[in-house]
Amino acid sequence: MEIGDAFGRVLERCHAAGGRPGVAFTVMERDDGHIGVHDAAGYFTGLDDWPEAERRICAGLAGRVLDVGCGAGRHAAVLAAGGVDVVGVDPSPGAVAVARERGVDARLGSAEALPDGIGTFDAVLLLGNNVGLLGSATTAPVVLAELARVTAPGGRLLLSGLDPFDTDDAEHLAYHRWNRERGRLPGQCRLRVRDGALATEWFDYLFVSEPELRALVEPSPWTIGRWERDGHGYAVELTRGR
Amino acid sequence: MEIGDAFGRVLERCHAAGGRPGVAFTVMERDDGHIGVHDAAGYFTGLDDWPEAERRICAGLAGRVLDVGCGAGRHAAVLAAGGVDVVGVDPSPGAVAVARERGVDARLGSAEALPDGIGTFDAVLLLGNNVGLLGSATTAPVVLAELARVTAPGGRLLLSGLDPFDTDDAEHLAYHRWNRERGRLPGQCRLRVRDGALATEWFDYLFVSEPELRALVEPSPWTIGRWERDGHGYAVELTRGR
Repeated sequence: MEIGDAFGRVLERCHAAGGRPGVAFTVMERDDGHIGVHDAAGYFTGLDDWPEAERRICAGLAGRVLDVGCGAGRHAAVLAAGGVDVVGVDPSPGAVAVARERGVDARLGSAEALPDGIGTFDAVLLLGNNVGLLGSATTAPVVLAELARVTAPGGRLLLSGLDPFDTDDAEHLAYHRWNRERGRLPGQCRLRVRDGALATEWFDYLFVSEPELRALVEPSPWTIGRWERDGHGYAVELTRGR
Repeated sequence: MEIGDAFGRVLERCHAAGGRPGVAFTVMERDDGHIGVHDAAGYFTGLDDWPEAERRICAGLAGRVLDVGCGAGRHAAVLAAGGVDVVGVDPSPGAVAVARERGVDARLGSAEALPDGIGTFDAVLLLGNNVGLLGSATTAPVVLAELARVTAPGGRLLLSGLDPFDTDDAEHLAYHRWNRERGRLPGQCRLRVRDGALATEWFDYLFVSEPELRALVEPSPWTIGRWERDGHGYAVELTRGR
């Protein structure tokens, strides 16, 4: 197995096939050995396929927008096509390449270390469950501060996620228990993407409930405002203090 | 990770969804860390989706037929529906359960150890690339003898496969080299199926070229007859000596 941009390679393969289903799959391996598979075509869908809560929270989005963890540009490409001034950031070179081909001003970078010189934004997006990029209880304050650094006073952070406890899957519940035993948040998933002989480095992706997210945001420069729910999760508006 | 019938669980999930694509995926992990993904709907297709070489080699199939590694019954269910007297065998309890629901007289068993008392057959099938069930140069003679044991004199063994050397995939070519170094046939894939937190035991699945297959069959009770080729592989008819 070789360490590399497995995620980007999957997106590039799907993009080369016009984003159609049945061609390229993201295989997510969790550190308990759990394997999840998703058709990468899900990263190429349009506005109509955004969760209802995301559409509601994003209504009227304007000004300069930063899409963090933009992937293939599921959100950023839609916004750019609608005339929004949006910059995408992703740590995957393949994702950045695909997002650019799809009309996004995409740059290489992560939520913890945004690229230099990207300026200030009126809104920052952590959509597509990218509240997960908060990573852990340890890294969440770092990410929230880094995003605040590039947000204008009074600007907004829009994020979406899934409640990890909204499941009766025995394998997920066992993972929550194991995480508690080793001092991690229950929904803190240690993951890597695998594709062919390629695997990414392990990374933490955080699923949090509403009380957990409120506790993480409380000491940060952000204040929680609107909280939109739909059948599959939530989307939340945070405002940066002035 | 737990050892269990990951393959059967994927088939059961796909079957529960009416065999439609986009629901359940077989994730094959190779012992070099290579990951391959296939939509399990491919195990639920009909006669029209059999490779051309398989359709040609199976034309006029009659008498008692044994389908080895029948899976969800991609071949056996079609034959049973067409009035052929077919028995399916698979080591996966989940596969056997699904094949039965699809009208196949399916039993638990493997190519190396067929279930007791299944009687004698006029034709034995190793289709869907199940020449792979020969396993290795070591196990191939065992499997070929076991299949001969349940085949009537003059009966046939119909198998299909893919030439492992018909690729320019650098990851597959590197695996061939590694196999040669450790004294295995180049296309001898050590695999396990992973699904959620479940993984099967590792098993060997053998991809062989025409010269390799001829060499494996030569000392066996079988004689190679028709050799059908299509763009994607081959299907071969072997006859059991009288």
